[in-house]
Amino acid sequence: MEYQKRLMKTKQRMAADGIDVLLVTDPANMNYLSGYDAWSFYVHQLLIVMIDEEQPYWIGRGLDANAARHTSWLDEDHILPYADHYVQSTIRHPMDFVSDFLKERKRDKQVIAMELDAYYFTAKSYLKLANNLLDSKFKDGTNLVNWIRIIKSDQEIAYIKKAAQISEKAMGVAYEALNEGVRESDVVAEISHAQISGTEEFGGDYPSIVPLIPTGEKTSACHLTWTDDVFKAGDPVIIELSGCYQRYHSPLARTAVVGSPSEEMRHLGDVVVEGVNSALDVVKPGITCEEVELAWRNSIERNGIKKESRIGYSVGLNYPPDWGEHTASLRPGDRTVLEPNMTFHMIPTIDIGHAGMEISESFRVTETGFEKLNNFPQELYVKPNIRLA
Amino acid sequence: MEYQKRLMKTKQRMAADGIDVLLVTDPANMNYLSGYDAWSFYVHQLLIVMIDEEQPYWIGRGLDANAARHTSWLDEDHILPYADHYVQSTIRHPMDFVSDFLKERKRDKQVIAMELDAYYFTAKSYLKLANNLLDSKFKDGTNLVNWIRIIKSDQEIAYIKKAAQISEKAMGVAYEALNEGVRESDVVAEISHAQISGTEEFGGDYPSIVPLIPTGEKTSACHLTWTDDVFKAGDPVIIELSGCYQRYHSPLARTAVVGSPSEEMRHLGDVVVEGVNSALDVVKPGITCEEVELAWRNSIERNGIKKESRIGYSVGLNYPPDWGEHTASLRPGDRTVLEPNMTFHMIPTIDIGHAGMEISESFRVTETGFEKLNNFPQELYVKPNIRLA
Repeated sequence: MEYQKRLMKTKQRMAADGIDVLLVTDPANMNYLSGYDAWSFYVHQLLIVMIDEEQPYWIGRGLDANAARHTSWLDEDHILPYADHYVQSTIRHPMDFVSDFLKERKRDKQVIAMELDAYYFTAKSYLKLANNLLDSKFKDGTNLVNWIRIIKSDQEIAYIKKAAQISEKAMGVAYEALNEGVRESDVVAEISHAQISGTEEFGGDYPSIVPLIPTGEKTSACHLTWTDDVFKAGDPVIIELSGCYQRYHSPLARTAVVGSPSEEMRHLGDVVVEGVNSALDVVKPGITCEEVELAWRNSIERNGIKKESRIGYSVGLNYPPDWGEHTASLRPGDRTVLEPNMTFHMIPTIDIGHAGMEISESFRVTETGFEKLNNFPQELYVKPNIRLA
Repeated sequence: MEYQKRLMKTKQRMAADGIDVLLVTDPANMNYLSGYDAWSFYVHQLLIVMIDEEQPYWIGRGLDANAARHTSWLDEDHILPYADHYVQSTIRHPMDFVSDFLKERKRDKQVIAMELDAYYFTAKSYLKLANNLLDSKFKDGTNLVNWIRIIKSDQEIAYIKKAAQISEKAMGVAYEALNEGVRESDVVAEISHAQISGTEEFGGDYPSIVPLIPTGEKTSACHLTWTDDVFKAGDPVIIELSGCYQRYHSPLARTAVVGSPSEEMRHLGDVVVEGVNSALDVVKPGITCEEVELAWRNSIERNGIKKESRIGYSVGLNYPPDWGEHTASLRPGDRTVLEPNMTFHMIPTIDIGHAGMEISESFRVTETGFEKLNNFPQELYVKPNIRLA
C-alpha cells in the first residue's frame, strides 16, 4: 500500500509534466518506490516507471538481481539483470541494455525523463541514451520523486524517530570518548560502533555521511574527515553525525571543547543557540523556508553577526554521499511552504575564520508548529579535562 | 614531487589525446592530483588541469575552500570557491561558474575533456557545460587519470600495506564477534570500530564500501548490507571488508560458518581456495589480466564448476561508492598487461543459487611474481558454536 501510494503520486507528477517513462537512478528514489536496498549503486542501475504500467522495472547488474528479489516488492518479470560484460566496460554500457529494453517495449517514441542531476546518473549514461533513442523526447526529471519524498508517511516518521534515538546515543558516546590526548580516529570508531549497533531493540544502518569531527582551526572546514591528531585542551570540536534506520536519518551536530572554551567560543555558542531557537519558533505549516532562515538571520544580526546562507535542508531517506533530499532549503529565496510531516535538518554554521560553531536540530513540521526529533542538550558542550582532574 | 610526477603523467596523456583542459570530478582523481580530501563530493566540485599551467585549479563550494587549503598543495590563487547560492539550486548550477571561469581564461575555444562516466559528474553538469561552451571541442576523459593510478608509487604501496594491516585486524574482529544468536548489526559495529580505530601506530580512514556480510540464502546476493537478523548455526556468512589508510584500500573477503558447514560448503571452499591460488600462481609482469582469469576458470572447471565472469579489479585510492579503480579487470577479454606495482583485489564469487562462497586475496604484482597484501588464513572459517559448548 505504502509503495502503491508513492507510485501513484509519482505517476501524477509524470502526467502533469507530460512524461511517459521515468528513469529513476537516485538510489534513495529507487528504494522509495521499490524497496530495493543494496550497496550496488557503484554500478549503473535504475528503476523504470512507465506511466501506464502497474509495476516499475528494476535494471541492474546480474550479480545484484538476487538483492532485488530479497528487498523489493517487484515480481520476477520486473527484475531485469544485465550481463557482467556490461560492467565498467569500454565497449558496452548498461544504458545500451536499457535502450534495447525501451525499444523492445515500444517506448522509444515516447517522452522519457531522467534525473539529470542525480548522483550516479553520469554524463555518459545520458549520452548513450541520447545516441540510442533518436526518436524519444527527453525531459529533466531531476528531483521529481524527491519532491514527493518531502512529506513523510507515518511509517517514515517512525523510522526517522528510531534514527534519532541512535543519533542521541552516538553523540553521547562521542562526548564520552572525547578527551585531551585521544586520537580523532578513536572517537570516530566509538561513534561508528554506536551508529551501527544502535539500541537493544533495533540496530542501525550505515549513515549516508560518515561522522565529521573537525577540530581546532579545522572547525572552519566542516567537511574534513578525521585524522590521527589528538584532541588538545581548549580546542573546539564540531561533531556532526546521524543515526540511520532503514536508510532514514535524523542528523545532529554539536560543538564541544575539552577543558575551558575561550570567551569567544562561549559567546558564539550562545548566539547559535539563540538563533536556532528563534528559527525553530517560527516553524509551522504555511510558513516558507526563507522565513525560517530570516528568523535565524535577524537573531544573529542582533548579536552582531552577519551571514546569509543556507541553514538547513529537507532530510530523510538516503544513501551516500548525502542525507539531504535536494528539495527545500532553509535559505533566502526558497519559498517552499512548510507542511505537516516535512522533516528538516537545521544546521546553521558560524565560521569566524579561525574557528567554527555548529549546534543543529532536526525537526518535523507538525499540524501547529514543530517537534524536535533529537532529544539532546542544546549547548556548547564543555568536557572536563581528565588530564587535569 | 609525488604530485608533480602524477601531474606530468596526466599532461602527457592529455597531449597524446589532444586535450588542452581536463575537468577532473572523480574524488579519487582529485585527491591523486591535488591531495584534496573531504566529504564534499555530495556537491559539484572539480579540479581543472590546464596542459600549459603548473598547478591545477580547485573549484568547489565556498564552505569547502578551507578544506582545500588544509589538504591540498595548491596555492591560494588556485582555490576558487563558488557562492552558496549555486548549491542544489534550480536556477544556478556550479557548472555555470566553471564555464565562466573557462571563458575568462580564454579556454573556451580549446579541447576540453570531462570524465563522462565518473561518479558525481552528472548528465546535468555535462549539459550545462555543453550549453555554455559552444566553441569548445569536448572529449571523453573517463578513466584517463585512473589509468595513471594503476601503477602505484612506493608511498602508495606503503599506504596500501597499512590498509592491509587494518583489514586483517577487522576480519579477526569479525570472526571473534560472529556467533549464533548475534545480530548482523552488532558484528558490523565491531568491524567498523576496528576499521576506524586501526592500530596503535595509525588509525584507519572510512572505507569506500561498508562491510558486507550477507548470510544464509542472502550469500547469493553479495551486495546486501546488514540487518538485525541473528546468525544461525550452519548458515554461511560472507564477510567482505577493507581497511583504509589515507584513502587506500586492501580488501579482503572470507566465508565463515557458525557450527558445522555442510559438505557442499566445505567442498566449495576447497574449490575456491584452489582456484584463487591457481590464478595467483600465474601472476607476474607480462601476463595479461585475462590469463589470470583463465587460470581460475580452468581450475574450477576441473572441479566441475562452470562460470565466466570478472574475478577481480585494480584497487587502491578511492572514495565511496567503490574501491575499485575502473581500469583493469581480471576477466575474459581484458588484455591489460601486468606490470610491477599494480595492485588488484581478486574476488571470485561462486554462487550456487541457495548459497555463495567468497575467499579473496588482494595482491601486488612484483618484479617476478606477486605478493599477497593481506596475511590472513585462506580457508572457509568454521566458528565453534558457543551455544553448544
